[in-house]
Amino acid sequence: MTNQQLERTVFIVSDGTGITADTFSHSVLSQFETVKFNSTRIPFINTLEKADQAIARIEQCVNENKGLQPIVFSTLVDPAIKARVSSAPCVFLDLFGAFVAPVEQALGVKSSHSIGRSHMGATSEQYLRRINAINFSLAHDDGQFVHGLEQADVILVGVSRCGKTPTSLYLAMQYAIKAANFPLIPEDFDRGQLPATLQPYRKKLFGLTIQPERLSEVRNERRPGSQYASLEQCRDEVAAAERMMRREGISWLSTTTKSIEEISTTIMEEVGLSARSY
Amino acid sequence: MTNQQLERTVFIVSDGTGITADTFSHSVLSQFETVKFNSTRIPFINTLEKADQAIARIEQCVNENKGLQPIVFSTLVDPAIKARVSSAPCVFLDLFGAFVAPVEQALGVKSSHSIGRSHMGATSEQYLRRINAINFSLAHDDGQFVHGLEQADVILVGVSRCGKTPTSLYLAMQYAIKAANFPLIPEDFDRGQLPATLQPYRKKLFGLTIQPERLSEVRNERRPGSQYASLEQCRDEVAAAERMMRREGISWLSTTTKSIEEISTTIMEEVGLSARSY
Repeated sequence: MTNQQLERTVFIVSDGTGITADTFSHSVLSQFETVKFNSTRIPFINTLEKADQAIARIEQCVNENKGLQPIVFSTLVDPAIKARVSSAPCVFLDLFGAFVAPVEQALGVKSSHSIGRSHMGATSEQYLRRINAINFSLAHDDGQFVHGLEQADVILVGVSRCGKTPTSLYLAMQYAIKAANFPLIPEDFDRGQLPATLQPYRKKLFGLTIQPERLSEVRNERRPGSQYASLEQCRDEVAAAERMMRREGISWLSTTTKSIEEISTTIMEEVGLSARSY
Repeated sequence: MTNQQLERTVFIVSDGTGITADTFSHSVLSQFETVKFNSTRIPFINTLEKADQAIARIEQCVNENKGLQPIVFSTLVDPAIKARVSSAPCVFLDLFGAFVAPVEQALGVKSSHSIGRSHMGATSEQYLRRINAINFSLAHDDGQFVHGLEQADVILVGVSRCGKTPTSLYLAMQYAIKAANFPLIPEDFDRGQLPATLQPYRKKLFGLTIQPERLSEVRNERRPGSQYASLEQCRDEVAAAERMMRREGISWLSTTTKSIEEISTTIMEEVGLSARSY
């Protein structure tokens, strides 16, 4: 293997944003741990003129890399634009092409080959649901706004800094799920009861917990050296929160080693929520 | 074409969250406008036992649909688990398999065939950058927190409710871009100057604008019948904001018909920002 092969330029060429193809290509390329990929999106290629601009970037890359061709992941749909770009000096991978044909066969229906179908319009009902969910989750972050909690699809509870906010926003943004979140604080543990505000919504509650050591790290970034961030305080709060959730019969998961995608997926499975955004 | 073919069950089977495959499958299936797809993710299939549970769900679906096989989009990586699930009665589409081989050939390198590589660990540097960016964007939403603006990758400006907040959060969540946002308000237009806070950061500013008619609709949902939501007020503010951005040489785009994905992609292109999350 030559050194040249350890780095490779990758272009994501799409008639839309290319975000789907970008994410997908990262998944495929993550299977090649020994190669460093330099990945660039070339979005909104929806005319032959823009196709030629994309080709110019591909040709420039070939020149700069002594003839080594880049890998191109394409979600171009229009046959003429796709044919044009695929004529460039590159390893051309047609993401949709590979699957549209077998799906056509399975369904006995021809695809529409229309551009931009994969992106929902900004005025569609589904899109407005997402925007409303984001606004809802923001307004109901950290228990700051109690009015309207009855509209929540799920209410995340847990100690401060255990991951409630990013998870709520992700559920809203990706799936149009109205996710509120509410902190469990030392006063609640002293009283030995869930916050009164939450009691009408017991069935919507889902708990997040976290290892005290990790919580202490996270809190120390925010308020270095504080009592709030001390390992002792974190241990006490986490133990008390878990006791309360156990007693109240609230399902929970630990966020310590999980990404927001993994946390959100698990919550949707456990609570039986499906995407409201499709 | 029989009625049976107008609806079809789709399963997304993954050893991880299946979010990438889910998004990708929606793009492919959106090319079939006449078919209604009922799509379900089956995530975290990382053992043969869980593979058998997935197969049971597929078989149940076949029974409930008079023998019609569902379409399965798979991003399973482990060969034994993949072989097990692909033996189920379904149209099995192997998303990674279709592209790993051509990439291997292009690189002259074998893939690692390892599970879960496509999801970054929750403790990786890239992941922490995303979480920090989300926290930054939340703290710097709507100009509420001025301290630390020098760390922003981009500062979105525009009239109230033109789309700044969802866009800032999307840029942070998807790309670990620290996106602040700052409202342009009637007082700024009366004074005829950018808010003083923003003046040191002129190069980081990017504007969002919106059609007054659409803005009035959006504001009316929030404060029905208010002066703030009136078409006249919206027209005045939008015109004044566009005048100010033109005079100050701030690039801008209209959000009226664009999704947050499209807005974010365009901003990244115009400002020259690339993902910080890979």
